[in-house]
Amino acid sequence: MKGEGLRILLFTAFMFMVSTVMGQKLLTLEDVMSGGSNWYNLQPENRFTAWWGNVPLETTPDEVKELMTGRTLVTVARLNEILGEKVVRNGHYLEFPYPSQPIAHYQATTERVQVDWKQGKVVWRQGVPQGAAHQDFNMQSRNLAYTIRGNLYVKTAEGQELQVSKDGSTDGSDNIVYGQSVHRDEFGISKGTFWSPDGQQLAFYRMDQSMVATYPQVDITQRIAAVNPDHYPMAGETSHQVRVGIFDVKTRKTTWLQLIGAPDDYHTNLSWAPDGKLLYVFELNRDQNHMQLVAYNTQTGKLEQRLLEERHEKYVEPMHGLTFLPWDQTKALMQSRRDGWNHLYLLDVTTGKTEQLTAGEYEVQQFVGFNKKQKCAIYLSNALDPRTSCLFSLNLEKPRCTLLGAGEGVHAASLSEDGTIAIDRYSSPTVPRSINLIATQSVRSRRPNMLTNILTAKDPWQEKGYKIPEITSGSIKAADGVTDLYYRMVKPIDFDPAKKYPTVVYVYGGPHAHNVDARWHWCMRGWEAYMATKGYLLFILDNRGSEWRGREFEQATFRHLGDVEMQDQMEGVRYLKSLPYVDSDRMGVHGWSFGGFMTTNLMCTYPDAFKVGVAGGPVIDWKYYEVMYGERYMDTPQQNPEGYEGSSLLGKAKNLKGRLQIIFGYNDPTCVPQHTLSFIRACEDAGTQPDLFTYPGDGHNMFGRDQVHLHERITRYFEDYLK
Amino acid sequence: MKGEGLRILLFTAFMFMVSTVMGQKLLTLEDVMSGGSNWYNLQPENRFTAWWGNVPLETTPDEVKELMTGRTLVTVARLNEILGEKVVRNGHYLEFPYPSQPIAHYQATTERVQVDWKQGKVVWRQGVPQGAAHQDFNMQSRNLAYTIRGNLYVKTAEGQELQVSKDGSTDGSDNIVYGQSVHRDEFGISKGTFWSPDGQQLAFYRMDQSMVATYPQVDITQRIAAVNPDHYPMAGETSHQVRVGIFDVKTRKTTWLQLIGAPDDYHTNLSWAPDGKLLYVFELNRDQNHMQLVAYNTQTGKLEQRLLEERHEKYVEPMHGLTFLPWDQTKALMQSRRDGWNHLYLLDVTTGKTEQLTAGEYEVQQFVGFNKKQKCAIYLSNALDPRTSCLFSLNLEKPRCTLLGAGEGVHAASLSEDGTIAIDRYSSPTVPRSINLIATQSVRSRRPNMLTNILTAKDPWQEKGYKIPEITSGSIKAADGVTDLYYRMVKPIDFDPAKKYPTVVYVYGGPHAHNVDARWHWCMRGWEAYMATKGYLLFILDNRGSEWRGREFEQATFRHLGDVEMQDQMEGVRYLKSLPYVDSDRMGVHGWSFGGFMTTNLMCTYPDAFKVGVAGGPVIDWKYYEVMYGERYMDTPQQNPEGYEGSSLLGKAKNLKGRLQIIFGYNDPTCVPQHTLSFIRACEDAGTQPDLFTYPGDGHNMFGRDQVHLHERITRYFEDYLK
Repeated sequence: MKGEGLRILLFTAFMFMVSTVMGQKLLTLEDVMSGGSNWYNLQPENRFTAWWGNVPLETTPDEVKELMTGRTLVTVARLNEILGEKVVRNGHYLEFPYPSQPIAHYQATTERVQVDWKQGKVVWRQGVPQGAAHQDFNMQSRNLAYTIRGNLYVKTAEGQELQVSKDGSTDGSDNIVYGQSVHRDEFGISKGTFWSPDGQQLAFYRMDQSMVATYPQVDITQRIAAVNPDHYPMAGETSHQVRVGIFDVKTRKTTWLQLIGAPDDYHTNLSWAPDGKLLYVFELNRDQNHMQLVAYNTQTGKLEQRLLEERHEKYVEPMHGLTFLPWDQTKALMQSRRDGWNHLYLLDVTTGKTEQLTAGEYEVQQFVGFNKKQKCAIYLSNALDPRTSCLFSLNLEKPRCTLLGAGEGVHAASLSEDGTIAIDRYSSPTVPRSINLIATQSVRSRRPNMLTNILTAKDPWQEKGYKIPEITSGSIKAADGVTDLYYRMVKPIDFDPAKKYPTVVYVYGGPHAHNVDARWHWCMRGWEAYMATKGYLLFILDNRGSEWRGREFEQATFRHLGDVEMQDQMEGVRYLKSLPYVDSDRMGVHGWSFGGFMTTNLMCTYPDAFKVGVAGGPVIDWKYYEVMYGERYMDTPQQNPEGYEGSSLLGKAKNLKGRLQIIFGYNDPTCVPQHTLSFIRACEDAGTQPDLFTYPGDGHNMFGRDQVHLHERITRYFEDYLK
Repeated sequence: MKGEGLRILLFTAFMFMVSTVMGQKLLTLEDVMSGGSNWYNLQPENRFTAWWGNVPLETTPDEVKELMTGRTLVTVARLNEILGEKVVRNGHYLEFPYPSQPIAHYQATTERVQVDWKQGKVVWRQGVPQGAAHQDFNMQSRNLAYTIRGNLYVKTAEGQELQVSKDGSTDGSDNIVYGQSVHRDEFGISKGTFWSPDGQQLAFYRMDQSMVATYPQVDITQRIAAVNPDHYPMAGETSHQVRVGIFDVKTRKTTWLQLIGAPDDYHTNLSWAPDGKLLYVFELNRDQNHMQLVAYNTQTGKLEQRLLEERHEKYVEPMHGLTFLPWDQTKALMQSRRDGWNHLYLLDVTTGKTEQLTAGEYEVQQFVGFNKKQKCAIYLSNALDPRTSCLFSLNLEKPRCTLLGAGEGVHAASLSEDGTIAIDRYSSPTVPRSINLIATQSVRSRRPNMLTNILTAKDPWQEKGYKIPEITSGSIKAADGVTDLYYRMVKPIDFDPAKKYPTVVYVYGGPHAHNVDARWHWCMRGWEAYMATKGYLLFILDNRGSEWRGREFEQATFRHLGDVEMQDQMEGVRYLKSLPYVDSDRMGVHGWSFGGFMTTNLMCTYPDAFKVGVAGGPVIDWKYYEVMYGERYMDTPQQNPEGYEGSSLLGKAKNLKGRLQIIFGYNDPTCVPQHTLSFIRACEDAGTQPDLFTYPGDGHNMFGRDQVHLHERITRYFEDYLK
């Protein structure tokens, strides 16, 4: 694999050199930002796919075709003809949920419809209750869970509207919230309702945050600016309290789980037993150093079983629930980082015993599904190279693991109903997009699996005659002298190694994210390409603390966020300074969120390294950040006062020397404005001069036209002070 | 007088030329800003004065002397000896309220004391109630009015604490407020309690603002940012409702005046009849075009008399109450702009008839008091030159008016008990400070009045060897081609007329203020001197709409704030461009508050005139400004939609071309942050790029070290983009 990787890299370099000569046009922000007017036109070619049982489909706005034959399955016009009105507006959003039945499912704004296109009749049709939010539709039962303001409701397939909860806050205070995500979306939580496999029982969260302080978000678009209080539990402060209920659609009874632990513990990764009799919960204490997997009886709410527990002196972070084997309901797949790397385990739910399925100094990034026929688990991992995410098939009965599809790039796959075929999409540094149909069985042979190429997109920038910068990736050693850190470097267009270029380090640096991977252009952001047209060299390094490099790599930052991360970034700076074409006197740094924290921190901690910085939506002091994320990495301010003090940028405000602009969304609910404003105040008190900008009405990030405006602004700042 | 003025000017120019050669040191922000570390050392020499009846005194931290003889009246040490403890901390704050008695009055933080230094005894001593705010002490009766949270109290001379009101808001909501200033300090109102002459009756305001919307001010210094709702009635929105009560200390009864007019009318300039039987109120309708002077019976609260009324199609603005003649209680002095200029009138309160006392195309700026012996009214006016404020004595029985003291500069005077002598302080362009004792009778002769010079301070900048810029004043024609507008010009140090200099226009431009007058250095602000050291030319022009130039001059802006003001400023720009040493390509503009509105407006309305602007605490849209000030000049948004639309800068955001930085106090209660933030949002939507900065915790202006920080920031912006 390594040799092949090298060959690809050489080929890449050659391609870029050619393109540099051929391309004439310069990329603009309108071209490279997703909010730009020309962005869509410069995206790699694409084809949209779906599954009907085991039949791969291609969708277009007007029809759905069988992917392999190109034969039309059904047209949007035909569906609307059957419906008697124009309900279906876009073929891309059709679903085919029932493998053996010719039924198309479509969700319009005000209703859901199911149409049998062979019999030419509407099978089922139901209006969406007005104001329904957080809709969770179960295809099996056709029951719909939804919320209206703070309360939870179910609309049955037959059309009955059942009120599950009564004490949700309907006064806008959000004191009690049903059926929504809890614990601020940490621990892999992204929703608040969980249907049982048969869709007749609904597990749901109830969050009481009446005891949580509110952050005053100000809406300036009202006639007179108005405050929107937003419950925001800051590190060390009172947190919200979550309960889990089970609503039985048939009996209309709610059973409350008798949850173990303290009121402010975390109840994560709810997983149904296949028969619906148990609900598994990964319980975590507030200190986040003790996780227990327990099972509750869904009829009584009582604790039924303690299956296993994990402890770690720093933290344990459950991110994934259980997935039961389709062919053996006593066993479930789970993920754990207990050996230092995220791997797959097989859990026997009758005994709580686990068997490690994957192992090695790499991470399983995603469990995709099962090949039910060959009893394989399909998953993505970076076993081949830390920057890749490739598809593997692991036979659960024979010790056999097979790479599926290309052993390069970053993949995403979706499986057929029986799991024997995958639609695999990937890009690699030189491949903008490749879509392939792949057989998923784990085979002993070294031959590639069956692979039908659906699409290999050409480089749209090259095709349209744009100058493309040279983009490379490599590694340097971390500040510990041992660990490999991967970087991406984007050279200015018309690069001349005899010149010296202003250089900007882009940084994120926090957990659960990375910037450098083997996607198209080494994952280059559009703005970097734009900066290359302006004559800047860009450098991006994933320091310790970032994603997919194992537990030790991530936890090196524990209790002192920023310190180790900056040391690693300064190794990047040292490397840059060793390059003859980098102008050491004109180095800048830019980052957002954790990267805004890093940028501000670097400007204040190493005031002579960077002349210019632009920090977006930064954390300034972890005491202003939330309980869930903050206490995991920092403990509480009460437990770790020196860590909070040492990582706070308020005390470093006095060191600011270069030009630093901080930009924040005026209504940022994540890194609340108190961060940035406190730093500005600290600078004023210390007599230093940062610059500032804000986007009223925007949250933690800018989208659409604001994104273009923002990057024009960021660019201008470097042009003003670094060039 | 004119010839003399010219002579002074010539002398000035000569002096400055000399100083430019002699001075070596460059002024820094620490030298010129009042928050700077060296500011105090560079102030002109001063002497602190007070009155004991008709005896002029000089106070020092340690003692009080007779000004004329230098004889010690009493020492601080002696007073503390009598008091038995160190109560008096600073001789400057001693008062001598009783002309014939050797009694010193001192207000410490926790108590008030009166000491007879001749008899060596404490005459009276009383503690201040804890938490007492808005203290109003009456020297005659020794009764004290004060508020605690929303309620009003009186502590009698005998020490009884009486609660005047009971329904004031004590919950922090400030819904009902007693004994504080109302109508947002417009109409000359600065407090909410008014003792009758004998100090036994207390007139007071009660303001109900429960119906007024609150602006959400956010305090980021709390552990978790907290909102402080601030009642702020925006133009055209529901206003507060004010009542006036009279509390009789002896009977302990409160009488409510049966006020005329609508609930949201203005009740201004409360004035007691000498015998305490009537209270005069200048009533103004919310539309501010109809003023009535009425008298209420203080025992019954009933309307007793309608004395006079004034109407004007634009607005009437009562700013001054009645002052009764000490020798005739049927007559009172009042001020009115009814003939187009603010003048003194004699009102017969028995008939409501008025007699105009002063007249001419100038304004009476302040009524100082009476010379009771010669029956003269002492006042300040700009009769000699619109830029001056000189002291005059008008004999009320003979048609005779005399200039008192120097006929140049800007004066401030305080009178002896009988009014026959004044301590007159003034500065002029070349005189940093002059203090004189003057006889105040109005005489027929052209000889100057008796004048004893107490102090003529030397130029402290010159004495300490600083380079001082050349500062001149002159006039140009307004955009109407007729009206004279006065300017100040500050030339860069080491000025060379053959060079071309970057030029910054500083502007305010709004009503009730001016920037150019005949004070020391032509009223130059310290920052201008600093900018001169950096090589900038500064230009400051008082446009139409500004202060002390009569009604027509001010009201030219009615219903379209900004338009005429900018046209006049552009005449200034035209004049500047005619000067060979002004670099037309490097012109900037800076202003705060109304001047921030002007700056932003100029940058967006004349985008090619100015390359760089710094706007502070700007009004952006008058609909976000308050009812009282806003509706006077603009009417309501409902009455004047095209005026609001046309003067709003939100629609002009798209025109921004040059570099504009807007700076605002994050907790500005005057020009609330919604102004600036709405403009920023409008620029983002329009794709223009202003810059932004804020001072969290600060209000409409910056003080202390923040003032230094702010001006370093403003300077840097011009240095970055204009130089």
